[in-house]
Amino acid sequence: MEINYTELVSIKHVSVQRIENNGTSSFLDTLSVEEPLEIRLSYGSHSERIQKNISVTMRTPGNDIDLAIGFLFTEGIITSFEDIQDAFAIKMNCLSQKQNIVQVDLKEDFRPNLMQTDRNFYTTSSCGVCGKSSIQSIKTVSPFGNLMRPQIQIHASVFYQLPEKLRIAQSDFESTGGLHASGLFNIQGDLILLTEDVGRHNALDKLIGRSLADQSLPLNEHILLLSGRASFELIQKATMAGISIIASIGAPSSLAVDLAAEFNITLLGFLKENRLNIYHSSEQTVIITQ
Amino acid sequence: MEINYTELVSIKHVSVQRIENNGTSSFLDTLSVEEPLEIRLSYGSHSERIQKNISVTMRTPGNDIDLAIGFLFTEGIITSFEDIQDAFAIKMNCLSQKQNIVQVDLKEDFRPNLMQTDRNFYTTSSCGVCGKSSIQSIKTVSPFGNLMRPQIQIHASVFYQLPEKLRIAQSDFESTGGLHASGLFNIQGDLILLTEDVGRHNALDKLIGRSLADQSLPLNEHILLLSGRASFELIQKATMAGISIIASIGAPSSLAVDLAAEFNITLLGFLKENRLNIYHSSEQTVIITQ
Repeated sequence: MEINYTELVSIKHVSVQRIENNGTSSFLDTLSVEEPLEIRLSYGSHSERIQKNISVTMRTPGNDIDLAIGFLFTEGIITSFEDIQDAFAIKMNCLSQKQNIVQVDLKEDFRPNLMQTDRNFYTTSSCGVCGKSSIQSIKTVSPFGNLMRPQIQIHASVFYQLPEKLRIAQSDFESTGGLHASGLFNIQGDLILLTEDVGRHNALDKLIGRSLADQSLPLNEHILLLSGRASFELIQKATMAGISIIASIGAPSSLAVDLAAEFNITLLGFLKENRLNIYHSSEQTVIITQ
Repeated sequence: MEINYTELVSIKHVSVQRIENNGTSSFLDTLSVEEPLEIRLSYGSHSERIQKNISVTMRTPGNDIDLAIGFLFTEGIITSFEDIQDAFAIKMNCLSQKQNIVQVDLKEDFRPNLMQTDRNFYTTSSCGVCGKSSIQSIKTVSPFGNLMRPQIQIHASVFYQLPEKLRIAQSDFESTGGLHASGLFNIQGDLILLTEDVGRHNALDKLIGRSLADQSLPLNEHILLLSGRASFELIQKATMAGISIIASIGAPSSLAVDLAAEFNITLLGFLKENRLNIYHSSEQTVIITQ
């Protein structure tokens, strides 16, 4: 399957009044666009196709098909890129003419795992709603849960440089100040892929969707950099893509650390230009300081 | 109805390794706790009560009943505090013994508007998924949509002081760096209510739920301060509570600005100690600079 990319409007210029100290001025500001995206699934046999609205998310237009594919994969609804027959954006049948629907057609007779589309599957299954059961339920779904992690040695200075590399690459971020980013780096610290969105879960779904389409999963010889904080949901998505090393510029939550420990993922937080905190370190990752 | 508050664990201490330049040290770090919360509704007649799981959200424990009530109100499922018979936390029937369920019992024969619990009601109704239709659908639900806004004059210096006041009050934030905050101020700039959570929508639901229980809605003579960015979802929730003035420390999205304009809410962004941007100003709010 080939993906056709369309240029979408992801920023918008508005006239804004600025008050600074006691003075007032006008200028043209740049906003990140936020618009709903419906992810629609079509599946079943040749004679009986079923169409279903799987999710609506508020996102920044751009890489919508990556976002849809990434979402289906990180939610466990599909298990590989091969499950997909076709994926395309649909233009709204109204004045706005926006492309706010992506339809993903699954291959004939592939059965999507729609149990996952129940409201917050990961947080409600097994013994009930508690962090421990949420982590266990991911184990039943993740294709790379028992992944062999390669031995990796990385110098701390490689990590120190990542936030600046992300900032430089985030041209949109510079202008709007309103986008979350996910950055994928190789272990030499070179940026391979950058995705952005008003929603940080969307930025990561775009990154994983693109990697899935590029046949580059599992991402077990890479570093994922998160522009903000590391929450349970982000580590859960990273787990699905087999990511071995996650660094976040902000703080992790308690459950994010528990999940990283359970899946043996190296999780770094508060990454700055000369320091970092290690919240969990897998035995396979060695961070060299000398 | 009276709310009973229970102390819940909202922070957790973990041992962390820090690498700084080329040196390594260990210290005890403080993480924000993230745990699922199920919001469960009980409604119907005396002879036939229905119990329904309405939502599961990842939240920081604390003010859970406010969160549940605020969620039900901002989602349009209930319309006033009078609709509620009782609300209480339920201890999990497993080893963790966590209180991760809040049950809200509605008064006999009150019919909750459960159309809203469909996946993302605001983004899917009427003409389809586009920002314009999302805004229109809020109009049909908001109890304070046509609210008279009082004439308010505020000096810019009052706004300049708010971020620092929020920071000082956010003791948890200081220690974990991982919590979003919503602050409610009067128009003199005094902090009335502060709520925190790993999820920014939860922080705002806690604030609105508490205000609903205090019978202090609509909040049309107050300033809401958001610690991060202003997204559609946050402005939508503020709209439900009749909030007139919103200031955010981060950037607003395009749809947040559109929604503020539609509901005549004054929306400020990039609020700093000596400047702010005005993204929409209602005619009733005058910001004085001299």
